[in-house]
Amino acid sequence: MIKVAVLGAKGKMGAQTCQAVEASDDLELVAALDQGDDLDELTTAKAEVVVDFTRPEVVMDNLGWCIGHGIHAVVGTTGFTEERLATLRSQLEASSGMGVLIAPNFSIGAVLMMQFAAKAAPYYESVEIIELHHPDKVDAPSGTAQRTAQLIAEARQTAGSAPNPDATSTGIEGARGADVDGIPVHSVRLRGLVAHQEVLLGDVGETLSIRHDSMHRESFMAGVLLGVRKIVGTPGLTVGLEHFMDLS
Amino acid sequence: MIKVAVLGAKGKMGAQTCQAVEASDDLELVAALDQGDDLDELTTAKAEVVVDFTRPEVVMDNLGWCIGHGIHAVVGTTGFTEERLATLRSQLEASSGMGVLIAPNFSIGAVLMMQFAAKAAPYYESVEIIELHHPDKVDAPSGTAQRTAQLIAEARQTAGSAPNPDATSTGIEGARGADVDGIPVHSVRLRGLVAHQEVLLGDVGETLSIRHDSMHRESFMAGVLLGVRKIVGTPGLTVGLEHFMDLS
Amino acid sequence: MIKVAVLGAKGKMGAQTCQAVEASDDLELVAALDQGDDLDELTTAKAEVVVDFTRPEVVMDNLGWCIGHGIHAVVGTTGFTEERLATLRSQLEASSGMGVLIAPNFSIGAVLMMQFAAKAAPYYESVEIIELHHPDKVDAPSGTAQRTAQLIAEARQTAGSAPNPDATSTGIEGARGADVDGIPVHSVRLRGLVAHQEVLLGDVGETLSIRHDSMHRESFMAGVLLGVRKIVGTPGLTVGLEHFMDLS
Amino acid sequence: MIKVAVLGAKGKMGAQTCQAVEASDDLELVAALDQGDDLDELTTAKAEVVVDFTRPEVVMDNLGWCIGHGIHAVVGTTGFTEERLATLRSQLEASSGMGVLIAPNFSIGAVLMMQFAAKAAPYYESVEIIELHHPDKVDAPSGTAQRTAQLIAEARQTAGSAPNPDATSTGIEGARGADVDGIPVHSVRLRGLVAHQEVLLGDVGETLSIRHDSMHRESFMAGVLLGVRKIVGTPGLTVGLEHFMDLS
Repeated sequence: MIKVAVLGAKGKMGAQTCQAVEASDDLELVAALDQGDDLDELTTAKAEVVVDFTRPEVVMDNLGWCIGHGIHAVVGTTGFTEERLATLRSQLEASSGMGVLIAPNFSIGAVLMMQFAAKAAPYYESVEIIELHHPDKVDAPSGTAQRTAQLIAEARQTAGSAPNPDATSTGIEGARGADVDGIPVHSVRLRGLVAHQEVLLGDVGETLSIRHDSMHRESFMAGVLLGVRKIVGTPGLTVGLEHFMDLS
Repeated sequence: MIKVAVLGAKGKMGAQTCQAVEASDDLELVAALDQGDDLDELTTAKAEVVVDFTRPEVVMDNLGWCIGHGIHAVVGTTGFTEERLATLRSQLEASSGMGVLIAPNFSIGAVLMMQFAAKAAPYYESVEIIELHHPDKVDAPSGTAQRTAQLIAEARQTAGSAPNPDATSTGIEGARGADVDGIPVHSVRLRGLVAHQEVLLGDVGETLSIRHDSMHRESFMAGVLLGVRKIVGTPGLTVGLEHFMDLS
Repeated sequence: MIKVAVLGAKGKMGAQTCQAVEASDDLELVAALDQGDDLDELTTAKAEVVVDFTRPEVVMDNLGWCIGHGIHAVVGTTGFTEERLATLRSQLEASSGMGVLIAPNFSIGAVLMMQFAAKAAPYYESVEIIELHHPDKVDAPSGTAQRTAQLIAEARQTAGSAPNPDATSTGIEGARGADVDGIPVHSVRLRGLVAHQEVLLGDVGETLSIRHDSMHRESFMAGVLLGVRKIVGTPGLTVGLEHFMDLS
Repeated sequence: MIKVAVLGAKGKMGAQTCQAVEASDDLELVAALDQGDDLDELTTAKAEVVVDFTRPEVVMDNLGWCIGHGIHAVVGTTGFTEERLATLRSQLEASSGMGVLIAPNFSIGAVLMMQFAAKAAPYYESVEIIELHHPDKVDAPSGTAQRTAQLIAEARQTAGSAPNPDATSTGIEGARGADVDGIPVHSVRLRGLVAHQEVLLGDVGETLSIRHDSMHRESFMAGVLLGVRKIVGTPGLTVGLEHFMDLS
């Protein structure tokens, strides 16, 4: 049984994490803290891993405290700059084998989609992305779509792929989507949808499509728990859940 | 057996029509004319229906001649203005029951997609269109996508539907597609594709998608032959293959 | 404002109907009854339309009472045999213009999918159905898929369509799905799904796909409210929500 | 320039390979042999790599000859038993660094789909396969679908995954598809389709779909040429194109 504590336990993701930990046979929820609670409770409860879903303003202090007290951390809080990552790396090197996972995305399906798309991209002449969300979303394209496009663009650059062919010379503005590092990204906003993305890859006579449909925040929990189980044996800083998945 | 003649018989569509007529049990190919041939051959061959896949410069003369000589016509040639349609209506009224079908699209699947999308649109809060073609296509969005958007917009206006909800306030230009009469249209250009279109309709808790995939020009022949069989009993001017289909 | 009462108001569908009526500007919830409540409350509250989501054992008594007291009814309860429908028709004929709608399916999207599939089916050589649900569903294929297959089969029989072509001569049992009136139906059961169905139609060089994705019971409410608004002006018995939709 | 010879050059795949080699800047077609031609032409032409699309009866003799004469081979011919593979391994060990690639599937997209599906499968509770082909196909499920199911089943067994959940207790025979090593496989046969396959993976709140659409035999050529370029530097026996792709 791994002893787990949650920081930001009253937030949506934190509360869901508490439930998911309690429902797991191999994990034990030993503390559920939120704003105003004392971090000393973590040592009292003998927490081995902390899951942090707090806020950018407090997460660095939380992590410094955990590393200093011999507690591993799995972090879903946002706002990690290169500078912050460098700070964490120093703190971890000075520690006795502590591990921290920073995961911009805990959705295993989204991670698989991105990794597969990047691996497949050099084998195809054309690659485009369609992302589809509910119409209350304020940004377009989604962060996941932009990240996917960047990973694809990097993989194609490394492989020396030619740019996407495109003979479009006349049309209506916007038809060909947003350009993210040379990859067209199309954003659909439709009532009834939640969060969906499809990567389309095409070459002479064939196409490959990789699609991820996410219906509930609940789907992130498998990724959070995977992080908790793996961070115990992974000293140092890990950025991205994909490093804890067997994709080779 | 209906006696059929083809004008523009050496063009791609004309040649395919000749083959399709010959392969049909209830149709007989009696003449296959192209540039330079004499229209008198049509009467010699006793053609009952002419299929015209010629050019905008000659099609009005062809049709005038046919109507004058008691031959029905099924027309895939483009370039019909309101003025041209008015001219044809007058000629047909003065004729003894002749019929002319002008069809901008002979694909039965594309016609069904457009008709269904327009009928469904008033029942949904959101409607968007994704069209996908090979990357050698010069225009975006496709003509079919623009026509579909117009039909949807008309249906929604008639029904008094509210505009698509869309909270997008930040993003990259083009992400939300081209705006065609208030309907977002997204154009994907991918090697390996031919001609595809999907209409997505969404409301609280559900979505409806209507997708048409067109792989070969051969697929237009079912529509051409449907036109030939129906025009014989349909005097006057008909614009659009949908009027010959039982969709009520 | 139409005055609406709900019978079976404590059940899932009934409770959702109460909410949906209250949220509508043109409808007023005047009574919400359940087992043990007195139907006289309906007249006291001056209900004009009753929505019945009760049980097969009581629905006929409920409807007889409503027709006798000058109240229209929209019915989602199951168990209507031909005999029951005949009884209702007699009662309605003897009434002063009352209307009853029996709807086996209040999902507007499912109704559209079924209607469109049946209309399109005679234009295609091949038709198959894939339905996809969560893995806790006990029946396969789903009732909606079976009903869709029947409607398609009827439409093809009326049009004199040939059977689906199929050269399969070797393989593994079950690969070609369940046979429902000559239409192959494939049932996928996958964790993460809710209720989805796709009708695939194919002919030389093209395919048409009509897909319905249903994520929440909430999506039925648009159909229930449509029924309430239309039943007021539709005397007699109506079976199927499609008769209240403009699909011609 | 790699000097390439084709055996079975008059067959469909062989002829297409000749064209593809000639169209490549880095490959030179030095011989195109078919039944009755003398293999000595290969040495005369100084072939470095042979592509074999012949028949099971002659392929072992062809390969023995090539290995003995210092020519690498890329093989699309079928019929390789474990015994034949063992024979080839011995011959290759005794050779001076020759390489042979046996590829059951030269479609890069199909190989990617299979590899990705197998890698993703252990992360999901449910996995099913839908394969869709033209209605003239005699076997169901397709060989690719069966191979995909086997790879998925192996990956899930290695990972200790539980069987797919499935509460189906009533229904029509065949609805739940064919069972291939515990993975349900559904075979759609539809006019207008060519060769398509989708792997669906589902877990709480999310699904991942990987779909491959193959429209032309031409799409296999990228895989054949990849094999030709890589076999030159890969001594010994390689079974499966995936080993020449960077998927780690």
